[in-house]
Amino acid sequence: MLKVQKIVELTDSSIAAGDPGLKISGISSFDDAGPDDLTFAVETAYLSRLDQTRAGAVLVPDSFSPEKRYKAALLKNPNPKLSFFKIVEHLYPAPKLKEGIHPSAVIGENLTIGKGSCIDANATIGRDVTIGAGVHIMANAYVGDGSTIGDGCEIKPNVTIMERSCLGQKVIIHSGAVVGSDGYGFAQNNGEHNKLIHTGYVDIGDNAEIGACTTIDRGTLGVTRIGSGVKTDNQVHIAHNVKIGNNTLVVAQVGIAGSTTVGDNVIIAGKAGISGHLTIGDNAIVGPYAGVSADVPPGEIVSGIPHMPHKTWLKVANVISRLPGMRTKLLSMDKRLKRMESDKTE
Amino acid sequence: MLKVQKIVELTDSSIAAGDPGLKISGISSFDDAGPDDLTFAVETAYLSRLDQTRAGAVLVPDSFSPEKRYKAALLKNPNPKLSFFKIVEHLYPAPKLKEGIHPSAVIGENLTIGKGSCIDANATIGRDVTIGAGVHIMANAYVGDGSTIGDGCEIKPNVTIMERSCLGQKVIIHSGAVVGSDGYGFAQNNGEHNKLIHTGYVDIGDNAEIGACTTIDRGTLGVTRIGSGVKTDNQVHIAHNVKIGNNTLVVAQVGIAGSTTVGDNVIIAGKAGISGHLTIGDNAIVGPYAGVSADVPPGEIVSGIPHMPHKTWLKVANVISRLPGMRTKLLSMDKRLKRMESDKTE
Amino acid sequence: MLKVQKIVELTDSSIAAGDPGLKISGISSFDDAGPDDLTFAVETAYLSRLDQTRAGAVLVPDSFSPEKRYKAALLKNPNPKLSFFKIVEHLYPAPKLKEGIHPSAVIGENLTIGKGSCIDANATIGRDVTIGAGVHIMANAYVGDGSTIGDGCEIKPNVTIMERSCLGQKVIIHSGAVVGSDGYGFAQNNGEHNKLIHTGYVDIGDNAEIGACTTIDRGTLGVTRIGSGVKTDNQVHIAHNVKIGNNTLVVAQVGIAGSTTVGDNVIIAGKAGISGHLTIGDNAIVGPYAGVSADVPPGEIVSGIPHMPHKTWLKVANVISRLPGMRTKLLSMDKRLKRMESDKTE
Repeated sequence: MLKVQKIVELTDSSIAAGDPGLKISGISSFDDAGPDDLTFAVETAYLSRLDQTRAGAVLVPDSFSPEKRYKAALLKNPNPKLSFFKIVEHLYPAPKLKEGIHPSAVIGENLTIGKGSCIDANATIGRDVTIGAGVHIMANAYVGDGSTIGDGCEIKPNVTIMERSCLGQKVIIHSGAVVGSDGYGFAQNNGEHNKLIHTGYVDIGDNAEIGACTTIDRGTLGVTRIGSGVKTDNQVHIAHNVKIGNNTLVVAQVGIAGSTTVGDNVIIAGKAGISGHLTIGDNAIVGPYAGVSADVPPGEIVSGIPHMPHKTWLKVANVISRLPGMRTKLLSMDKRLKRMESDKTE
Repeated sequence: MLKVQKIVELTDSSIAAGDPGLKISGISSFDDAGPDDLTFAVETAYLSRLDQTRAGAVLVPDSFSPEKRYKAALLKNPNPKLSFFKIVEHLYPAPKLKEGIHPSAVIGENLTIGKGSCIDANATIGRDVTIGAGVHIMANAYVGDGSTIGDGCEIKPNVTIMERSCLGQKVIIHSGAVVGSDGYGFAQNNGEHNKLIHTGYVDIGDNAEIGACTTIDRGTLGVTRIGSGVKTDNQVHIAHNVKIGNNTLVVAQVGIAGSTTVGDNVIIAGKAGISGHLTIGDNAIVGPYAGVSADVPPGEIVSGIPHMPHKTWLKVANVISRLPGMRTKLLSMDKRLKRMESDKTE
Repeated sequence: MLKVQKIVELTDSSIAAGDPGLKISGISSFDDAGPDDLTFAVETAYLSRLDQTRAGAVLVPDSFSPEKRYKAALLKNPNPKLSFFKIVEHLYPAPKLKEGIHPSAVIGENLTIGKGSCIDANATIGRDVTIGAGVHIMANAYVGDGSTIGDGCEIKPNVTIMERSCLGQKVIIHSGAVVGSDGYGFAQNNGEHNKLIHTGYVDIGDNAEIGACTTIDRGTLGVTRIGSGVKTDNQVHIAHNVKIGNNTLVVAQVGIAGSTTVGDNVIIAGKAGISGHLTIGDNAIVGPYAGVSADVPPGEIVSGIPHMPHKTWLKVANVISRLPGMRTKLLSMDKRLKRMESDKTE
């Protein structure tokens, strides 16, 4: 239970309208909220419907000027979404980690483990593993020999981290994800594909988050590197020796082939595929379903298979369904042209 | 071993041809069947080749009129495929569950568990979990705190069910699937992507079946809902706050982005992608590889990237490989036209 | 530490240039190598830059004729990549397996296990399982009842192998992969999708390698077969009753629908999808993102959605971004044509 005044203080907001003494006990989405709930509105689609939410209080952008009176208290804030989730965290604090190793967890020789860390039931930790402080390794997860897990990491149930992986601080790895599997590299010999020993490893920067059932292959030689603050969604495939810069977003079911380098602050939308040995520049955006088979310069937005400037793709997308009509037109114009040509000859 | 007469009784069929006393000891596909096997034929492709199967008995549709005599006994039935698999189940009954919790399974505080349920080796169950009757939780699976697993559910090995998930009755979750992972939602702040606490959960209806390595994210706030009788294939990605209606089919490697609502009896074919915040109406069909970026009305069939009416796509698909020829034609027609225009001017 | 002369002997190379007494202590990629490292160069892109690598020694193709003197020792070899990785294996030998079953592993009744095999912590093995010699079943993996695992197989952590699966010799299954899940097959009845009992199984040939989070469904009836030497990348989906020939490559995020047959030595590039009940001939190549909905004859190369000959696709890919321009042109030509037609009539 929080008074609106307290929310204002916690989020550094200002009250644009409403009673600072109003009590808020829950959080909810704009459309599901009730009179005891806090919600937030950022996009015009919601701000224009402020009279429709039943929420008790709404966090809105600083720039918003209410043109009428609303039932809800309005709290102005520079980042309403971020502030909203601060209050969520306040109302639903994460359960405190209980330091300790569950007796059913199996721990290899020579574990180094920091303060306040917790290893849950049926987890398996290899030898020569270093685990920082405040780390939570959940049930049935696996951490391979010689791996390093930084302070504050969360390794969810059934995660696999293969040998010699290196995770920075506050990395979250969701269930079913695999870090450090062998890359897909073979030496062809007489029609057979001979396995290459993969001596490389995976390095993941601070504050990265890896989605459920995402797979990150180790370097064949050397490193596969995921930058700080990178967030991958579920079922992303990152091949051997890929390098991804800081704060880059990789949405669900994207595939990035071997040895490709992706810059900082890039967005790769859902289901896009990027071929191997390419460079995607900083701040580039790759659209959904795009098939990228050449370098993308910094800041460019590309879409389509094959990829093209996004603005071109928007026009192309508009034409594709008209292709049958265009073909019919073309054929009939050819006939008309022929007719004129033959008329002229006669 | 079953006599044809017994099969007729079990499946409510009628004998169109052949000996009711014939003994059947196995089941097989149309082309692999031997003289002791039962098989079935529904499509014309098979019915027209009834003289080629070596099966002892064939279940055929009620509507089928044999025009010649076949070696195989013919059993007419309103749903031959369904009836065939009834006999499969009769001949290969599922091994009976042995009630009990394996000593290596780790069970959290305050478990409620129904009659006849079985928890296998190395499974981990959180605290405050409710498990119904006749549930099978297989080896190395994980069920998080506060989850509810309805009667008759089957949780296969290495499945992850995160906290507060709610499964109806007779739900099957295949190996490697993850239910209740955090959604892909962040609040941007100074170029960084701040994690949102996900307070929501996943609710799965009765008789749903979730394929191997499928991932279903919990609601950011509120619920991600999978309707009754929904069947997802393998490697399907269902994002936070998606709602899927009853009896909808989601084929392999489909991705559905956040907050999209899918109706009842929808079919989403393999590898299709559906953007966020959309509505796919009841009985709609989304074709394979389709990229859906706008609402689809009930009953519509769409295909292509970007999606379009399926009938249009069929025509488009026919034109795409002809595009280079169309371009050549267009350029040459332009020349011809120019020639005529200049002739005229002269 | 190896002398160049020793590398020559181990790989059956010849010294084209440099000192046979030079000592090599590491291996590295062309661009990262230092003076104590061995590397290799096969493609012209690297061979033309031989003066740029800092490597002490470089394996090059037999056919390469050095035109100048390089700092690095040059070792000629018929297969430089293969030979390079032979030396990698020599310098980084796999840790020897320690025979034995970890006390936390749970083993079902009636296990047969060969010499030198090792079952790691928290693994679960069903009943009536046969495991060959030199097999490594890693932590938290599951092997279902009645399965057979051939000599020298490596089952990585958190792998799931369902009942009655059959693996040949030296098969590698990467983490998160699922072998033998139920196929996606239902009998429709009154709008509901009735589950079919899957009595089939999965058979994987010798030397196959299955990527992380790849799923291979069992046959509905009969077998899903993966040939010898097949290599699948990560997140590949192989449906019920698929048959894949020997030495075929299936790259990341490919999906192959039910009952399709793929020949020997086929390459299916990343993210391609292949519909059900098709035949892909020996030595065929399916391009990335291709959507294959009809048979592909042996040796053909296809690309695109829908698939077409690869040569056609290259031309199509070149035209797609020009479609908006083509449409504009077409419409303006139509006007010009109309003008001429009306001029003529007047």
